[in-house]
Amino acid sequence: MRETLAEWQPVVDEAIEEVIPRRIDEEYLTEFFGPATYAYDPETLQRALSDPVWELLDRGGKRWRAIVFLLLVRGFGEDHEPYLPYATIPEILHTGTIIVDDVEDGAAMRRGDPALHHVYGTDVALNAGNALYFMPLKVITQNPADLDNGTRLALYEMLMAELNRTHLGQGTDICWHNDGGVEVSREQYLEMCACKTGCLGRIVARLAAIVTGQSDEREQAVARYAELMSVAFQIGDDILDIENSLGEAGEFGKEFGNDIREGKKTLLVIHALETASEERADRLRTILNAEENTDEEILEAIDILQQTDSIEFSRERALSLAAEARDQLADADLAEPEASMLAEFTRFVVEREQ
Amino acid sequence: MRETLAEWQPVVDEAIEEVIPRRIDEEYLTEFFGPATYAYDPETLQRALSDPVWELLDRGGKRWRAIVFLLLVRGFGEDHEPYLPYATIPEILHTGTIIVDDVEDGAAMRRGDPALHHVYGTDVALNAGNALYFMPLKVITQNPADLDNGTRLALYEMLMAELNRTHLGQGTDICWHNDGGVEVSREQYLEMCACKTGCLGRIVARLAAIVTGQSDEREQAVARYAELMSVAFQIGDDILDIENSLGEAGEFGKEFGNDIREGKKTLLVIHALETASEERADRLRTILNAEENTDEEILEAIDILQQTDSIEFSRERALSLAAEARDQLADADLAEPEASMLAEFTRFVVEREQ
Repeated sequence: MRETLAEWQPVVDEAIEEVIPRRIDEEYLTEFFGPATYAYDPETLQRALSDPVWELLDRGGKRWRAIVFLLLVRGFGEDHEPYLPYATIPEILHTGTIIVDDVEDGAAMRRGDPALHHVYGTDVALNAGNALYFMPLKVITQNPADLDNGTRLALYEMLMAELNRTHLGQGTDICWHNDGGVEVSREQYLEMCACKTGCLGRIVARLAAIVTGQSDEREQAVARYAELMSVAFQIGDDILDIENSLGEAGEFGKEFGNDIREGKKTLLVIHALETASEERADRLRTILNAEENTDEEILEAIDILQQTDSIEFSRERALSLAAEARDQLADADLAEPEASMLAEFTRFVVEREQ
Repeated sequence: MRETLAEWQPVVDEAIEEVIPRRIDEEYLTEFFGPATYAYDPETLQRALSDPVWELLDRGGKRWRAIVFLLLVRGFGEDHEPYLPYATIPEILHTGTIIVDDVEDGAAMRRGDPALHHVYGTDVALNAGNALYFMPLKVITQNPADLDNGTRLALYEMLMAELNRTHLGQGTDICWHNDGGVEVSREQYLEMCACKTGCLGRIVARLAAIVTGQSDEREQAVARYAELMSVAFQIGDDILDIENSLGEAGEFGKEFGNDIREGKKTLLVIHALETASEERADRLRTILNAEENTDEEILEAIDILQQTDSIEFSRERALSLAAEARDQLADADLAEPEASMLAEFTRFVVEREQ
């Protein structure tokens, strides 16, 4: 798996460079955006778009959205080569969302360096991030795989539907953060994850199914696979935050109590609030809603999560979502070795240690 | 004209409410975004989307993008009624861009009240603004005018092309602001306007042409009309900023020297830099690039603009763009009274006094 990722990253990056070249010139602008009515300023657009975007891409990222897309295409029994340009769509969209998310969250760092808006300013970063919501869709117009009109229309409608739901998820998450008082149900939490991160996964899967002309059933199966995997990944993230907070030997980990400090309504917290005694649930609520927390309060909150078996509950739920994802994959009946590789992903998302 | 605007505003707002209702409930979410995989949280989405968006819409705005769309549809000899839902597309997109622009510019106020990100927080405002980039496109999927697949595909491709160029224009403008040293040509300035504000105008016009099945020639003519009008409007804005700075009797106006303080590269400034003596051009550059300006410096800069006849030059250019817009409109050969009303718009954008 690791080898596949390492092998395909440069191939994916080369395809991304076709959409957003490292160096923006007149010729690219004319070809990609159409002839200028008056005159473009390529030097300025270099600084507005290419510089910030490639700085972030070069900092890392596994390009796994593009790679899962390519694995699915091959799993459908097709050669991946003609579909390579489409693999950039979810990858570039994802890059756009993290730039915008960092502005929304006021994030300090991203991939080990200051978040892009700290380097280029909020205005440049935000405009570049938003530009990435539309630039990759140009691939559909360019039509490198010679898709018929009906297929291209289906791609646009799918993308609009999923990108709409992405914003539902993000908006829900933001408002939960900001409004400490709101009570969130387990099902609402899963929906938020399914929208916020799951929809980008669904784009990966549905894109692969639509460009290769799969049946609706197969498209839905791989879409659900990707959605379930994304939700399981999110829960895995929440568990890791608590486990890292304690460290392996019960000591304070490097990012001690992040989610609790932020008052994040994770599945662990939701389960603890539902199952703890009224008194302890109130105490957990108070700690989560406080502006600031002491280390003792963080430990107290984690203790409540442990006493209510909320870590185990959440891990069980993540494992069952991952198992459900594998069932969907089995329904899609993909070719080997891709089917096994894609199934392996569902184990990784829950069992990873960072 | 004023009556037409006042009469149609409530009709447009009613259509917008179909896309983003004032009250978000389960039923709307299920119908508009599709059934939840798990469970939506309508109360939270009310606060994430509907509250901020309607606060801004209720503050004002003339909805002229929607109204120009409807006038064009009627000018093409069609009943506007069946196309009303499509009129919301440019209006909602526009609302999204102003929310995002205000975050990018760090704007304090919008339509007489604090900018949305000051009221709801950057995270909520930004996510709502970005959601508005995708929500109205759903109208195309809903297909209220029963358009065939080819027409719907054409709509998506047009929208993606224009929204891409919108981000080129915005990125160019931002980087010019941030980098005082850059020299901008007249043609590059017009291109920036054509992209940044012209593309939304083009969306209005092309949308009207595509949904009613006009010829490519007619579509291009009305698109150019809208683009030219937008560029003329922008130049008119730049002139007004300088004129308001001086006030009618040469006194300090209410927003004294805004554009000069921001170091904005307007057509007036570009013309002055090109035609002033080297010494005076250098002085203008210094004032524009300074972090802070005294009132005396602002007056000095305005004096250079006046000495080089840059206000007159820019007004002439705006008038000739407006005349060119009317020529394009004539080429499109629209029905009356809409043809005359749309021609009147081109006079208003240059001759308005606020």
